Amino acid sequence: MEKINGTIINTDVEFKDFKDYNEKIVSIKGYIHRIREMTGFSFVILRTARETVQCVYAPEFSDYRFDERLKEEACVRVTGKVVGSFDKNGKERFELQIHNIEILSLPAEQLPIVINKKQLDNIQLSTVLDLRPVSMRNPKERAIFKIQEGIARGFREFLLKNNFTEIRSPKINYAGAEGGTNVFKLDYFGKQVYLAQSPQLYKQSLVGVFERVFEIAPVFRAEHHDTSRHLNEYTSMDFEMGFINDFTDIMNMETGALKYIMNLLKTEYAEEVELLHADIPEITEIPTIKFMDAKELLMTKYKYKPSDMKDFDPEEEALLGKYAKSEFNSDFIFVTHYPSKKRPFYTMDDPNDPEYTLSFDLLFRGLEITSGGQRVHDYHAQVEKMIKCGMNPEEFETYLMLHKYGAPPHGGLGLGLERLTMHLLGFKNVREATMFPRDINRVSP
Amino acid sequence: MEKINGTIINTDVEFKDFKDYNEKIVSIKGYIHRIREMTGFSFVILRTARETVQCVYAPEFSDYRFDERLKEEACVRVTGKVVGSFDKNGKERFELQIHNIEILSLPAEQLPIVINKKQLDNIQLSTVLDLRPVSMRNPKERAIFKIQEGIARGFREFLLKNNFTEIRSPKINYAGAEGGTNVFKLDYFGKQVYLAQSPQLYKQSLVGVFERVFEIAPVFRAEHHDTSRHLNEYTSMDFEMGFINDFTDIMNMETGALKYIMNLLKTEYAEEVELLHADIPEITEIPTIKFMDAKELLMTKYKYKPSDMKDFDPEEEALLGKYAKSEFNSDFIFVTHYPSKKRPFYTMDDPNDPEYTLSFDLLFRGLEITSGGQRVHDYHAQVEKMIKCGMNPEEFETYLMLHKYGAPPHGGLGLGLERLTMHLLGFKNVREATMFPRDINRVSP
Repeated sequence: MEKINGTIINTDVEFKDFKDYNEKIVSIKGYIHRIREMTGFSFVILRTARETVQCVYAPEFSDYRFDERLKEEACVRVTGKVVGSFDKNGKERFELQIHNIEILSLPAEQLPIVINKKQLDNIQLSTVLDLRPVSMRNPKERAIFKIQEGIARGFREFLLKNNFTEIRSPKINYAGAEGGTNVFKLDYFGKQVYLAQSPQLYKQSLVGVFERVFEIAPVFRAEHHDTSRHLNEYTSMDFEMGFINDFTDIMNMETGALKYIMNLLKTEYAEEVELLHADIPEITEIPTIKFMDAKELLMTKYKYKPSDMKDFDPEEEALLGKYAKSEFNSDFIFVTHYPSKKRPFYTMDDPNDPEYTLSFDLLFRGLEITSGGQRVHDYHAQVEKMIKCGMNPEEFETYLMLHKYGAPPHGGLGLGLERLTMHLLGFKNVREATMFPRDINRVSP
Repeated sequence: MEKINGTIINTDVEFKDFKDYNEKIVSIKGYIHRIREMTGFSFVILRTARETVQCVYAPEFSDYRFDERLKEEACVRVTGKVVGSFDKNGKERFELQIHNIEILSLPAEQLPIVINKKQLDNIQLSTVLDLRPVSMRNPKERAIFKIQEGIARGFREFLLKNNFTEIRSPKINYAGAEGGTNVFKLDYFGKQVYLAQSPQLYKQSLVGVFERVFEIAPVFRAEHHDTSRHLNEYTSMDFEMGFINDFTDIMNMETGALKYIMNLLKTEYAEEVELLHADIPEITEIPTIKFMDAKELLMTKYKYKPSDMKDFDPEEEALLGKYAKSEFNSDFIFVTHYPSKKRPFYTMDDPNDPEYTLSFDLLFRGLEITSGGQRVHDYHAQVEKMIKCGMNPEEFETYLMLHKYGAPPHGGLGLGLERLTMHLLGFKNVREATMFPRDINRVSP
């Protein structure tokens, strides 16, 4: 608060608090988002961190003489009077009658794209991505990443409340966690090392320490194919929990996390949800179907001829999403008991039917967003399974310390943050929900 | 809750809730941390996620016949009666009279080190690190990383409350952010790319979008020297804030964050603080001294002959820590206005004395834990400064979009999570506060 010429100015007020300053003089900082000159007055739209604020310039109440230098994307402090009025829905809206505008900084050039319309119109995705530091200034574009913040925040908050410990596993690894060809190799002072594909082996190790752990961090996959669903660097949200009774404990924990996330978005990210017309799912209970039952359902009910009896193709996932919606009014469905051959070496086989595993995928509106399951915790069983998979247990000495020196029954899952953001917002390309995507053709900006 | 033979058992209770179950029957899961056989009874210490629980076995109240297979590091469910008693300080303590022990899993081998004493005794750091998945099972060792969780959590919570947005900048970068030789190079489908040394350029770009941003994520530095302070992969806690009045806004935000963190540790991490005898600093106001004044003080008051007039050596930092403590009773001191030659190209020079910058370091108990400052926001000024530093502005086209298309006055800082954890806990080697450290000689486990 300061006093100038006898007038009290409430400095650096936030727009969301305007209701507390009705008819009072405030100052607020932000970008000049848009200037619309009308007859006898102008609208000056100020862009702040999360909102746009309508300010009105008119000679009768503005001390200020319009500065020639003022332009869009200038950073300013606007001083003026807060004025409330009711819109046609009876909701009170506030605007600012401009008394003065102080220029804090000026752009050197005009923007290369129009960002101050409702959305970026007719701009190719590759241009949007090339110009990310600028294209994200569009309120709808940046709202995508507030939603993304909310998803990760909800995941974390829920798990912290449930006694999980946040871990930070190393991204420079001495061995490719799950093997395979799609690892990035790195020269590390003459040694060949790898970028982490997943925190899998570390998070399992740490179940022996903290019982329940989670991590939200980048992972790296040297995917050679360029699809709309895959990235070469993405954010993996992982958790692993010990002392489970069975693998449904993991599914229940995920259900709880998703409910918490969706509720957080509806409350603390309501403006962004509205701006993006995001359809936030209602979650009560998530239905479950066994992998083989799902295959049969696809063949009988949907007359689908599967090309692979060990996994689902995207069309099958979409049909299962449809099934979940029509039968259970659910946007989600768990598919359990995937074939052993398709799951990694640490997955626990179903003791009642070892061809299948105590594992699951979660489909959200017909797209797989999670893989998870119970892990082998017995040392001898894990070594045996590794050998069966053609692996050398000696290369996994650190990992196997967990099992050798005592592991509780445990399991966990992984969830791709960008993919979930994409699908929640109805995008077809994961790059739209990634600030700075990396793929086989793109490594900048 | 379940009922067995007419007895109500409160299942899977947490130790911290034992007070609500006094004289009741509960079950609790965990690791067998230690078995101490006494005359006529045994202590069975159960290790849960954050505590150790004293359980007592005696034939007169244990239905259970001691299972021969039961051993340390077995995972079990213990059922028994909660019994409270008062210790000599009048504090109520709870233990569990064992009725039954169900074995959930057994280790294949005995531990290679003793982890169930108060601390790891006479074990070399390199062994501790080699055996991390096991050595962290020691309650004091694992408490280090709960404290670390608390620091990062406090930083994040405080910034979210202050309208910062959490960002995730890419770790695979097309250019070495701040240049220099200590970047890891990576082959990316035939292109040479780099691992991120810092989120600096991205976080500045995003000030133009979200005003205030932060990130807690790994950074990579190909340090060739092996010191007790440096790591080749560490967790950087960064923030950047726009629309600052001057660079003291950044220092004030950091002061607020540190107060919040220390308070969080004292409240929600009290057990770990006690276990580690951690001396959590009281923060009221943090004193400030200009770089050149500090140099003079070191020469006059402490008769120190500086070897470098542009920077401090560790001994000078230690003396400044002593000065802050004796003069201001503060564990922290800000040193401001570092020489321009020693600060990066994006640092804003002091308009009153361009040999010096609007920057600061924060020393904590005589160790630098933060570098921060105001950044250049004017496009022409930034391009000019880059050229003066021998850089090619064309290589920083994306970065300069911020300045070219309008940047608010802004600044920020970076804080190494492991280093802060180390110094807070009084360790001399940052590896003690790093789960899986990477240095020139170590890339595993």
